[in-house]
Amino acid sequence: KDSYDITLLPGDGIGPEITESTKKVLTALCEKCGFDMNLKVALIGGAAIDAVNDPFPQESLEQCQASDSVLLACIGGYKWDSNPRELRPESGLLKMRKEMGLFANLRPAKVLPQLIDASTLKREVVEGVDVMVVRELTGDVYFGTPKGIETINGERVGYNNMIYSESEIDRIARVAGDVASKRGKKLCSVDKANVLDVSQLWREVVTDVITKDFPDVELSHMYVDNAAMQLIRWPKQFDTIVCGNIFGDILSDEASMLVGSLGMLPSASIGESGPGVFEPCHGSAPDIAGEDKANPLAMILSAAMMLKYDLDRPDEALLLENAVEAVLDQGLRTPDIKQEGDGCKLVGCSEMGEAVAKIV
Amino acid sequence: KDSYDITLLPGDGIGPEITESTKKVLTALCEKCGFDMNLKVALIGGAAIDAVNDPFPQESLEQCQASDSVLLACIGGYKWDSNPRELRPESGLLKMRKEMGLFANLRPAKVLPQLIDASTLKREVVEGVDVMVVRELTGDVYFGTPKGIETINGERVGYNNMIYSESEIDRIARVAGDVASKRGKKLCSVDKANVLDVSQLWREVVTDVITKDFPDVELSHMYVDNAAMQLIRWPKQFDTIVCGNIFGDILSDEASMLVGSLGMLPSASIGESGPGVFEPCHGSAPDIAGEDKANPLAMILSAAMMLKYDLDRPDEALLLENAVEAVLDQGLRTPDIKQEGDGCKLVGCSEMGEAVAKIV
Ligand SMILES: CC(C)[C@H](C(=O)O)[C@@H](O)C(=O)O
Ligand SMILES: CC(C)[C@H](C(=O)O)[C@@H](O)C(=O)O
Repeated sequence: KDSYDITLLPGDGIGPEITESTKKVLTALCEKCGFDMNLKVALIGGAAIDAVNDPFPQESLEQCQASDSVLLACIGGYKWDSNPRELRPESGLLKMRKEMGLFANLRPAKVLPQLIDASTLKREVVEGVDVMVVRELTGDVYFGTPKGIETINGERVGYNNMIYSESEIDRIARVAGDVASKRGKKLCSVDKANVLDVSQLWREVVTDVITKDFPDVELSHMYVDNAAMQLIRWPKQFDTIVCGNIFGDILSDEASMLVGSLGMLPSASIGESGPGVFEPCHGSAPDIAGEDKANPLAMILSAAMMLKYDLDRPDEALLLENAVEAVLDQGLRTPDIKQEGDGCKLVGCSEMGEAVAKIV
Repeated sequence: KDSYDITLLPGDGIGPEITESTKKVLTALCEKCGFDMNLKVALIGGAAIDAVNDPFPQESLEQCQASDSVLLACIGGYKWDSNPRELRPESGLLKMRKEMGLFANLRPAKVLPQLIDASTLKREVVEGVDVMVVRELTGDVYFGTPKGIETINGERVGYNNMIYSESEIDRIARVAGDVASKRGKKLCSVDKANVLDVSQLWREVVTDVITKDFPDVELSHMYVDNAAMQLIRWPKQFDTIVCGNIFGDILSDEASMLVGSLGMLPSASIGESGPGVFEPCHGSAPDIAGEDKANPLAMILSAAMMLKYDLDRPDEALLLENAVEAVLDQGLRTPDIKQEGDGCKLVGCSEMGEAVAKIV
């Protein structure tokens, strides 16, 4: 295949400008490598709420589903923060994940040598850290029912159901086993099996899947509280981590902070079949939106994940990743990764995008 | 009151030896300050399982309830790890919390200047960090029903209910408001209100309680994933944090790891009335049990929290805390806090206890 339909979801805040830079890079890559990308924009988040009063309209969903892959920038902003929940940008994100069946979220946290000083952790602790968090994304307390707020015995009670079925655990364990077997072959499954029934089932099914079908992967288990400590104590002990939706939400963000430069971190959300969604881990940074100060590299690296996981073009993915490292080696830095006295050159979002485009 | 009945729960692993050292210190303190402590031991954890096949026997519960306060060392060990859940040491802990109504867990994470290099975070990031995590301890997904593992549509499903009532949130918010008003007067409530119904109620009730009844406390809200990042990015932004049981489990452990020296961190678990339980944050370290290598300082500092919160003896609490800082200033270090080239003297558990006892 040498022509792809890609849906771009620029979203909110800095979303449009990092999308613009990423487009330039993808266009350059296509020219160089001799394939085509048909990049079509759709609405999500606050932008969609403002336009059609729905954070992820049916039209966007259908366009995404008809694409080969989806590249999302970021969503959210103060403007919509006091909206009722169903009219908030995040609800669009959750709906997209659920409707597109994106049950596996891959969140790499890799420390780049050029940016090692951006971490608040000591150099010797984070040097060489390369952790992949595989987070389940369509189950758990995020989507479990029954849920709600109701009055019981004269007072209100709020509740959500933390729930996983065997088949949900089985399929995420397979993704994690596969990811781990292509990396360092070490998988740590994180749960709270000393307290939770749902975690007991989780541990049992993960153990089954990995020991039977991924014999070359070394499996360990860790309680979530301990994992939150160990990530800080000695992150290099981890290769691949697998966990449920809420523990993964917390731990993947914690892991990304080890790296220190959120503006560099991509993610992939994939399903059984059909297009995946690729997006940076950072938020929409409304405070700097439109000022050409945003860092487009996480979105560009997300495009690299798209090339690898959805378009089956690992070589082109590598080209992008190398180009990103090369602009860092050239000493270009957006404000978020500029350190005092690093002797580097401060650039804006568009200049950074152009620099990457020139290299690929 | 100048005589107190204290229940000691030595538990497992290094528990008995740190309890021994703490006893020496308390005895010295009583002599110096002219009051009495009647220290009576009871069973919990693996020790209780081995003795009477119950991780927290009724007898222990009754003795604790009849005491003025309870000092717990630590529980658990490989030996009981494959027991069925109700026969595991942790179940004793959960039962104790529930039966004694210990709904508020106070977990200070304070960086001591003498041990600042023990942190994996950079000195400038952790210097002066002094965070108190107030964790709800008898509700949430830990105790919520319905729960279990059952077969639905031909496959097993595991589930636990993440649930809070208004009155449960109200009372922990009051404890947190009180704690914050005696500290830096800044309270950050952590939840996942952008996704969870239970968190929406949490946020509403906490806001109500604090704005109405703690007008001098500045309240903010943060999502749990962001809190996990911010604790690493810039921990000094926090004074007091309040959260539910499972988020608190994760964040309090994460916060304690900032300090780097788990062997120094105490905790308090308190209820509406009746005795509280005071215990170090570290585990039972079965690998070094009985070798006189354990650090008794976290348990000694837990005794200080007991003096402050349960026995209403803040001056004596301060004496203990100062004595602990003094032995550190003298350069005494147990193996867990000894750093290569720090020029300090390596001591065992009993010598450390004696040194503190001599100073108080
Ligand atoms: C915005 C929010 C609903 C979302 C989540 O919790 O999944 C975000 O934190 C993420 O990790 O993508
Ligand atoms: C042992 C376990 C049940 C317990 C908890 O999760 O509460 C522990 O992690 C703690 O924080 O005291």
